[in-house]
Amino acid sequence: MSNPNVVVVGATGAVGRVFLRILEQRHFPVNRLRLCASPRSIGKRIKVNGDDLLVEETTPEIFDDADFAFISASTAVSRELVPIAAKRGALVIDDSSAWRMDPKVPLVVPEINGEDLEWHENITAIPNCSTTQMVMALYPLHKANPIKRIIVDTYQAVSGTGTLAMDELREESRVILNGGIAKPSVYPHQIAFNVMPHIEPFMEDGYTREEQKMLYETRKIMHAPDIAVSATCVRVPVYLSHSEAVHVEFTHPMSPGEAKVLMAAFPGVKIVDDPKTNTYPLAIDAADKDDVFVGRIRKDSSCANGLAMWVVSDNLRKGAATNAIQIAEEVVKRELLKPRSGAKKARR
Amino acid sequence: MSNPNVVVVGATGAVGRVFLRILEQRHFPVNRLRLCASPRSIGKRIKVNGDDLLVEETTPEIFDDADFAFISASTAVSRELVPIAAKRGALVIDDSSAWRMDPKVPLVVPEINGEDLEWHENITAIPNCSTTQMVMALYPLHKANPIKRIIVDTYQAVSGTGTLAMDELREESRVILNGGIAKPSVYPHQIAFNVMPHIEPFMEDGYTREEQKMLYETRKIMHAPDIAVSATCVRVPVYLSHSEAVHVEFTHPMSPGEAKVLMAAFPGVKIVDDPKTNTYPLAIDAADKDDVFVGRIRKDSSCANGLAMWVVSDNLRKGAATNAIQIAEEVVKRELLKPRSGAKKARR
Repeated sequence: MSNPNVVVVGATGAVGRVFLRILEQRHFPVNRLRLCASPRSIGKRIKVNGDDLLVEETTPEIFDDADFAFISASTAVSRELVPIAAKRGALVIDDSSAWRMDPKVPLVVPEINGEDLEWHENITAIPNCSTTQMVMALYPLHKANPIKRIIVDTYQAVSGTGTLAMDELREESRVILNGGIAKPSVYPHQIAFNVMPHIEPFMEDGYTREEQKMLYETRKIMHAPDIAVSATCVRVPVYLSHSEAVHVEFTHPMSPGEAKVLMAAFPGVKIVDDPKTNTYPLAIDAADKDDVFVGRIRKDSSCANGLAMWVVSDNLRKGAATNAIQIAEEVVKRELLKPRSGAKKARR
Repeated sequence: MSNPNVVVVGATGAVGRVFLRILEQRHFPVNRLRLCASPRSIGKRIKVNGDDLLVEETTPEIFDDADFAFISASTAVSRELVPIAAKRGALVIDDSSAWRMDPKVPLVVPEINGEDLEWHENITAIPNCSTTQMVMALYPLHKANPIKRIIVDTYQAVSGTGTLAMDELREESRVILNGGIAKPSVYPHQIAFNVMPHIEPFMEDGYTREEQKMLYETRKIMHAPDIAVSATCVRVPVYLSHSEAVHVEFTHPMSPGEAKVLMAAFPGVKIVDDPKTNTYPLAIDAADKDDVFVGRIRKDSSCANGLAMWVVSDNLRKGAATNAIQIAEEVVKRELLKPRSGAKKARR
């Protein structure tokens, strides 16, 4: 086939901008690239691969000619837009939580369950950023020694909320350093020089939706319906990269050495673990990189079959944009784009 | 007896300054107050209860007349100084980790194990800040339903390191906001807009000393030698108050409602837990308060007998200075000051 036509919805958002940069960096082959965003960004121009592209209105018709539609918008927008784009013939790669748990929608981390793309019906979803980096670290271990339980507490960057949250952290920090008082608007509380155990709305059981995602998405991606997960998801005053303290219980004992060998052999995972030289993954080091970094790997002192570790990754890259492009690459490799009818089909 | 003479070592440090403020606030009765610090602070003057006090050199003789010696210095200084002060007749309340695990030294959180002061031999210790707030939250639950295992990940303020670390966070934040590059000197890595899974040196088993403290100190304070604890201790860019994500396993099931009733009835613990109104403990709210605040209390989704919660407290107050003064108050109440010989005894 000829190179695919690509529509990016949410092109001016935190994930969208990174997505376009990665599209260039990975030399993803594109025939025609069209950018869409919310009304306030229409008419802006963004340079991609040397072309000066106009940000357009998101109409149903824009998907008629698209092979791939990357959608990074709110859950509400995705809920409405995704079926429209899919029906018009685009293979949707959706970044929201709207479709992830739909049994007809593959939820994919290509290194782990790329084969789930085989049964797509034009809608695919990428996992939540905090889930992706955790399953990247744990899946190679799970294959060797099934995981029974995961306890994870997160240290999540404000870019997960979006560019306005990054501005809020910057502005609040400046105000407080100058002796003023923060006036939060994106978050319910001050995020500068503070931490907030609240990401996404609270559910009936006292967990937040973000915390529940780490349970349900992990099960779906790893094909492990019985894994138990308990998470506390916490927003911290960091711009980029989520960090996670992970405590895992396996079926059988696993040594830190064995875990390191398994993870190091897994594509996209890098071991950064030399306590003697103060070497462990850091949010600031992971920023703008595609890998998932794992360190502080040790026997869990509270559990015979347990390991504890520290997992860090750029939430906008492997946590979102990189994973989305990897799905497109996997779809192309597996030749899974649905055939179209009429002129569009002939074009290929 | 007449009011006690008090010597404060480390009076100009982060904990020392707060200690003097709390001494005033609690109207702790003092006959003579003397302040000591490291050589660079000698000759400074500090106002306490309206008196302008000189910061003096720390000599062995200064303890001859002291009933209480509060020592908040480095572990190395405490190791040397504590036995000298105790031998000269002062009851030492030490803030370092040097003496905490010594079987002859009571390690005390007065609300939990004040009775351990009965067997003191002139040396007592306060626990590490991250331990104190956790055991305050968990002990009332443990009494009702013995705890078997604790997994805790921390979000610790830079004031735990000292005033220089607070300056470093401030300065790094300023530099980065102005587009510059941080040059850490107190910490091995940038702490502004970053998180660092490294507090205290690394041990043989891959845990840090800070993480090990949370195991061994918890067992000693709660008289629970079999409790299993696994911690990841993380420094975050917050000035005051440590936050902790805690996952507990009990012998029998415990409902969040029961846990709330037990904790609310425990002195020094406050429940702050109303997700519907975005109400949960926050570092910035706990700062300058003496209580330990607990929220996000929920059934642990990964364990039948488990609860998860979020525990926040001012690390310099209940985590250090307040607990130290409470020990002194408890000693006075229980009449546990050792009698002295000669003139000093007659003075009383």
